[in-house]
Amino acid sequence: MIKLDTIGKITLAIAMAKEGEEAQTLIDKVEKKGYAAARGQVGSMQMEKVIAAVETTARREGLISDVYRDTHSLYHAIMEALSGVCRGQFSLGNALRTVGLGFAVVCGPKDAGDSDEEKWLAVAFYGTIGAPIKGFEHEAIGLGINHF
Amino acid sequence: MIKLDTIGKITLAIAMAKEGEEAQTLIDKVEKKGYAAARGQVGSMQMEKVIAAVETTARREGLISDVYRDTHSLYHAIMEALSGVCRGQFSLGNALRTVGLGFAVVCGPKDAGDSDEEKWLAVAFYGTIGAPIKGFEHEAIGLGINHF
Amino acid sequence: MIKLDTIGKITLAIAMAKEGEEAQTLIDKVEKKGYAAARGQVGSMQMEKVIAAVETTARREGLISDVYRDTHSLYHAIMEALSGVCRGQFSLGNALRTVGLGFAVVCGPKDAGDSDEEKWLAVAFYGTIGAPIKGFEHEAIGLGINHF
Amino acid sequence: MIKLDTIGKITLAIAMAKEGEEAQTLIDKVEKKGYAAARGQVGSMQMEKVIAAVETTARREGLISDVYRDTHSLYHAIMEALSGVCRGQFSLGNALRTVGLGFAVVCGPKDAGDSDEEKWLAVAFYGTIGAPIKGFEHEAIGLGINHF
Amino acid sequence: MIKLDTIGKITLAIAMAKEGEEAQTLIDKVEKKGYAAARGQVGSMQMEKVIAAVETTARREGLISDVYRDTHSLYHAIMEALSGVCRGQFSLGNALRTVGLGFAVVCGPKDAGDSDEEKWLAVAFYGTIGAPIKGFEHEAIGLGINHF
Amino acid sequence: MIKLDTIGKITLAIAMAKEGEEAQTLIDKVEKKGYAAARGQVGSMQMEKVIAAVETTARREGLISDVYRDTHSLYHAIMEALSGVCRGQFSLGNALRTVGLGFAVVCGPKDAGDSDEEKWLAVAFYGTIGAPIKGFEHEAIGLGINHF
Repeated sequence: MIKLDTIGKITLAIAMAKEGEEAQTLIDKVEKKGYAAARGQVGSMQMEKVIAAVETTARREGLISDVYRDTHSLYHAIMEALSGVCRGQFSLGNALRTVGLGFAVVCGPKDAGDSDEEKWLAVAFYGTIGAPIKGFEHEAIGLGINHF
Repeated sequence: MIKLDTIGKITLAIAMAKEGEEAQTLIDKVEKKGYAAARGQVGSMQMEKVIAAVETTARREGLISDVYRDTHSLYHAIMEALSGVCRGQFSLGNALRTVGLGFAVVCGPKDAGDSDEEKWLAVAFYGTIGAPIKGFEHEAIGLGINHF
Repeated sequence: MIKLDTIGKITLAIAMAKEGEEAQTLIDKVEKKGYAAARGQVGSMQMEKVIAAVETTARREGLISDVYRDTHSLYHAIMEALSGVCRGQFSLGNALRTVGLGFAVVCGPKDAGDSDEEKWLAVAFYGTIGAPIKGFEHEAIGLGINHF
Repeated sequence: MIKLDTIGKITLAIAMAKEGEEAQTLIDKVEKKGYAAARGQVGSMQMEKVIAAVETTARREGLISDVYRDTHSLYHAIMEALSGVCRGQFSLGNALRTVGLGFAVVCGPKDAGDSDEEKWLAVAFYGTIGAPIKGFEHEAIGLGINHF
Repeated sequence: MIKLDTIGKITLAIAMAKEGEEAQTLIDKVEKKGYAAARGQVGSMQMEKVIAAVETTARREGLISDVYRDTHSLYHAIMEALSGVCRGQFSLGNALRTVGLGFAVVCGPKDAGDSDEEKWLAVAFYGTIGAPIKGFEHEAIGLGINHF
Repeated sequence: MIKLDTIGKITLAIAMAKEGEEAQTLIDKVEKKGYAAARGQVGSMQMEKVIAAVETTARREGLISDVYRDTHSLYHAIMEALSGVCRGQFSLGNALRTVGLGFAVVCGPKDAGDSDEEKWLAVAFYGTIGAPIKGFEHEAIGLGINHF
């Protein structure tokens, strides 16, 4: 249903896809359109672990290189995506809540097919947020896009 | 690609769908699963116009009745969804930026197929945010879920 | 002095009352008006302990049942009430400050005497916030009201 | 019910009192305890009008003198009190909501009967916040305390 | 006193310099170190005018080109610098306050003398914020740094 | 370059000065103008340690006395200065970032040479913020001014 024609939709689709084959199929498909993409999963009451999980995945999959510029771009995209997940207070455990999130990091043109040089980076989260009690949670989403 | 099996995914799918036939097909499909759904579109530099557009659509389509409780639930779901769109500062024109957003409002069970009585309300936005200059914008998403 | 004719005033009065007889007299009085009410006390530098104290009291006193909807309503009422206590930064120990708070949770109509079905939930905090040094603190209050 | 023995309780009691005789009786009573106090009322969708109403009342009633220090202390006390009223987003009309608030400004010792020199200033709001539709609103409170 | 050896210090020095010769001398000096720099002045109760003033200066002085990437980088640097000026609430007129600010925009390496390719962009504000009453204001500063 | 003629500029100059002789020379100079000043240095991922470092320095250097009023004024000046350093989210370690900051606390008239009695207190931070990886950080500044 989600058309893979913009960096945002691509990142959201991968974050919302099931880990494994479903996600990999999407990643393979968008690589042919000139995107680099990776997906991960994280569950925690500690915000810093969520941030670290995304950074580790992005670095391990070679989406960002070892220069500060890339990390800076990724960090701010993560923080923006977390705004959508947290909706107001930037805290998890301190606010007595926990998250279970799939996430995706994608690099490439803002619009698929763009031939110009502008490269962007997107981070998306999709999963649940709620009390640390099984079932006492609801869905949450977040998307952060940054120049790269 | 988005499986229509939770209120969040349903609301996101409708907000991301093209206005008209594509959205209507989704709305028809989820109504058979026990959801009530509506979609709208809004472009503005004024936050209050974005909020009003969602409220008007929800009321006109009969998703919320004319009691304060329903409006209260909807209002907070809208504000939470706007957190994801705004990512930090709760302002549009005052922050010299503008949005063009599709949105969806959906009522029903948290998980499709849930037979219990718990009814929830979800609001999703998907579109672009950016400078008031054509093309100087990128995608944004937001999702707010509230008990109803 | 506080007229017990609205859910907000009732909740504030109980939160500001002395624990024990004074609070109990108020609770008994408002129960006759169709409200369910409970009072507790918490002192901490950890925000999550403050939230947990209110949730535990509300659950133990039977104000909320064991469904997610009720917990969700209570959680957001607590967070809103904490906004008034924290006034800006949503943190206690991380911001090198501590609280000593009485709190109340009340369920019932928005206005006492309302015969309609609309049930609301209110949370109030009243006490002190300040440096972790005896006497280096001042009063703070917060009220959160949510549909229930 | 509210014991007039601290600056916070005094300010809250006056803000929650009915305009006119009820409030005046309280003001007279606390003046004998060494406090200077004033009460006002404001309804608006514009945050700046709410702030201006409090500043005007405080200046007109002689609670603050014409030096910047006093205005600075009052301004920050107002902003802190508004945190409790707004609970998250610092906006009214931009967030499609309106307030009807009684407010009080009080100067004096933190604890009634304190003979030391420390003078404090407190601002309290009590009233309603909600949609610009009659009855679609609930109560809100806020208290800000600043050294003076 | 401020050593012109980092992008932050350079930007702060230019923002704090007097308009005209003093600022121009600094700009000339840092241009020799590989920086592009511009200075402007803005007074307003409208946040969007402050943002627009910086964007206009940066564009007119050729610090950013007409692509979205550059504007995006500049916009977020401005917003970060405004955090320091506003200290909490992201509003001016709505919070009944006004600013008079000198500002600087600087592009170049993070550390003067860095020969690598990493280019950064910094925005600094320095001036006053306060009530719209002459003299009822105090100093404020802000610095935002973004990859470019 | 920074003219030592206002409390803000003085505080910024001392915070940006190198610890030791450079800072001491400035402190000596401004003491002759009627200011009391101190400088310190702190590196941490814990916000509360940053706050405590400033409070300890101010107390040890005799800038604030042991009454709550002084501590209250200092605390809020620190929090405002940290807004500029943190630019959005009020957290360090929880947001997976660390700071290395020089800071200054200064008491005295708003404008050097002011003979009136109004005493103000300013806190400034200058240093770096970034990932807990050597070199993956950039500069940050913050200034908070409060009546004293």
